[in-house]
Amino acid sequence: MPGVSRRGFLAGAAGAAGAAGAAWTSMLLAGCDDAPAGEESNSAPNNEPLTGAAVAFDGATQAGIRTPTQAHLNLAAFNLRDGVDAAGVRRLMRLWTEDARALASGRNPLSSLEPEMVEWPANLTITCGFGPRVFALAAPDAAPAWLGGIPAMRRDALRPEWGQSDLVLQICADDPVMCAWALRHMTRAGVDYARIAWLQQGFMNAYGSIPKGRTPRNLFGQVDGTVNPSTDDDFAQQVFNPDGSSSLVVRRIAMDLDGWERLDRASREQVVGRRLDDGAPLTGHDEHDAPDLSARDEFGLPVIDPNSHMARAMPPADHPEQRFLRRPYNYNLPPAPGSESLSDAGLIFLAYQKDPEAQFTPVLRRLMEADRLNEWTTHIGSAVYWLPPGTAQPGTAQPGASQERGGGDAYWGETVLAGGRG
Amino acid sequence: MPGVSRRGFLAGAAGAAGAAGAAWTSMLLAGCDDAPAGEESNSAPNNEPLTGAAVAFDGATQAGIRTPTQAHLNLAAFNLRDGVDAAGVRRLMRLWTEDARALASGRNPLSSLEPEMVEWPANLTITCGFGPRVFALAAPDAAPAWLGGIPAMRRDALRPEWGQSDLVLQICADDPVMCAWALRHMTRAGVDYARIAWLQQGFMNAYGSIPKGRTPRNLFGQVDGTVNPSTDDDFAQQVFNPDGSSSLVVRRIAMDLDGWERLDRASREQVVGRRLDDGAPLTGHDEHDAPDLSARDEFGLPVIDPNSHMARAMPPADHPEQRFLRRPYNYNLPPAPGSESLSDAGLIFLAYQKDPEAQFTPVLRRLMEADRLNEWTTHIGSAVYWLPPGTAQPGTAQPGASQERGGGDAYWGETVLAGGRG
Repeated sequence: MPGVSRRGFLAGAAGAAGAAGAAWTSMLLAGCDDAPAGEESNSAPNNEPLTGAAVAFDGATQAGIRTPTQAHLNLAAFNLRDGVDAAGVRRLMRLWTEDARALASGRNPLSSLEPEMVEWPANLTITCGFGPRVFALAAPDAAPAWLGGIPAMRRDALRPEWGQSDLVLQICADDPVMCAWALRHMTRAGVDYARIAWLQQGFMNAYGSIPKGRTPRNLFGQVDGTVNPSTDDDFAQQVFNPDGSSSLVVRRIAMDLDGWERLDRASREQVVGRRLDDGAPLTGHDEHDAPDLSARDEFGLPVIDPNSHMARAMPPADHPEQRFLRRPYNYNLPPAPGSESLSDAGLIFLAYQKDPEAQFTPVLRRLMEADRLNEWTTHIGSAVYWLPPGTAQPGTAQPGASQERGGGDAYWGETVLAGGRG
Repeated sequence: MPGVSRRGFLAGAAGAAGAAGAAWTSMLLAGCDDAPAGEESNSAPNNEPLTGAAVAFDGATQAGIRTPTQAHLNLAAFNLRDGVDAAGVRRLMRLWTEDARALASGRNPLSSLEPEMVEWPANLTITCGFGPRVFALAAPDAAPAWLGGIPAMRRDALRPEWGQSDLVLQICADDPVMCAWALRHMTRAGVDYARIAWLQQGFMNAYGSIPKGRTPRNLFGQVDGTVNPSTDDDFAQQVFNPDGSSSLVVRRIAMDLDGWERLDRASREQVVGRRLDDGAPLTGHDEHDAPDLSARDEFGLPVIDPNSHMARAMPPADHPEQRFLRRPYNYNLPPAPGSESLSDAGLIFLAYQKDPEAQFTPVLRRLMEADRLNEWTTHIGSAVYWLPPGTAQPGTAQPGASQERGGGDAYWGETVLAGGRG
């Protein structure tokens, strides 16, 4: 059920419901993702030939969340056309789910005349999210409270053109042509129901372009994604609800690279709290070392500035739930005409969690209050979506699997959209 | 010398100057590129690990021309700032050449504080071109006649924002982060001399994302690049002048994908003259078969429409010089706000030849007159650049190599810019 309560949040999936719950958890975790259980996800992909690389579309959770970050992102926000009702949304979701499954599998969707464009999916994932209007139309009582939006922050400079929409498709692939084609196909397939509100195009390192296991860097030169969840338990605690659903927060963050690059390296490291070369905390030796915020230098000053980005982002000891999955993408566009900036660059910051209000917003608030990095970053877009559970190919659902268990929906959001509510 | 004459054009490098010319030709061809002699270039790259992939910067010709098309393009046009004279251009070229060499080699340029961003060049190439103003400043008599610009065409819908500039940097890499970083570094390094006029960002298939030897497809679904030069002789005849210089024509071509996709497959194939599935001419069986324009079907009609794109693009029998190298990149941007188009997409069409007037313009004119594909394409940008010969790392020039032979310039365009002309 989408309206996940904050109660029992910390219990995670495994502890939630005794034996039946535990059995279900195993099923969820076995089926939910493409990363072998226990292996780190969201690190650099491996060097297997890309022509053979595909991500399973169906599963207890949607692909594109735990999937290691692909090189390319087309994040497309859609608004429903006037007159589209709950029945229309159901038709759109049946259609989109079927076509996304085909594309991710290297099969040509029924409505497409271009089979040659889909032969090598290159780890294509297409992940769907619902904004508040879909719930308002189809199931008002089921809307999660946090879908009202991320609270306004003092430093926000949000632009309406990057705001909330009714639907979102997160399209990721390791081949930019595949990523463009999938966007085009999905937009065309849904054209009678929804039109594009905005499109955020981003990139990370190409498949195989950095050594396996390395954390990618953003355009500030920082390793980005060090503290992500990695184990099955992490994902069950932080990201996926028991029914396989999750949430996506999108923040578009402009980065003042021109200003940042005027800092020397020591200052950059102080601002972030980590070393630039290996991403280790200033108190540690390895990227994944736990930072020691109490450490002092020979003058008695904190080694890690309490207002450094890392220190502000860390969950306090009494709020271990303030963690989430990050899948950030860079953008790098031409400077505005007449501007003396060298570029219009930044981050499409994608955060996934069970409950944005409990997990994401407190971190954002701490950062907005005093993060030293704020001098070079400006949040210019914000949106939040409910991510439906994963799907099952028609005819393959387990006889014993109920819809409440997730992963059995015939199309995205069936549990919310069906049931005669609309 | 840049002012290549049209006389002797067809002779190519090999036949131009007897024994000395032939010896030089071997040197040129041995040193000029990264593709083993005789192997097809500009086809899909291989599947060697991308972390080890780099393209030699120095050579008789610039890298990024014969180099197989990388996945990402940042084509940046620059205009010189007011007051920059020939001496300023020389300083900029020394600086840019040195920094481009470092970046392509995975070394950090002297002025950069970000060594971590350049470790894996991912086949980075940075190729420089001169517009008319550089010649006007430094060597007016040396300007090639064709640098006056591509003649206006009846169907042109050129927009000033995609027009001619003083300089161009063609930055290509198989990693989008490297491609973005190299653009940023080069822009910053040259900021006192030149500022960005426009930036064209494009993509082709990711490294290893389609099987080796396949020709990539553009967003019309067509294979694009079938008739490119492939052998050393082809390149000596079509692309590289004896001194190692060449030229780049940039055409920005908007593609009406929405309209194109309303055609059935048979109509699309008639428009192009090739089969969609394998790119073979409608009279052939294989992509690389020569088309038979005289073939008739059972009704006596031409199998290949004389106004098909392929038939119009083919050089006539008495003008075999009308060939050139193509390195096209796709672009796929969000539709303009309020537009009902599904996307703002097209091609950044890059053509390389010794002499645009003799090789490129006649083909363009034939296409603009009657190519059936014109219904779905609109040329919205045009620019032309002289591409200086390749460079040699300081201290490595052969004692016997004169500047006239190319490949020995210490910096881009030294032969034109030095000599006290400015």
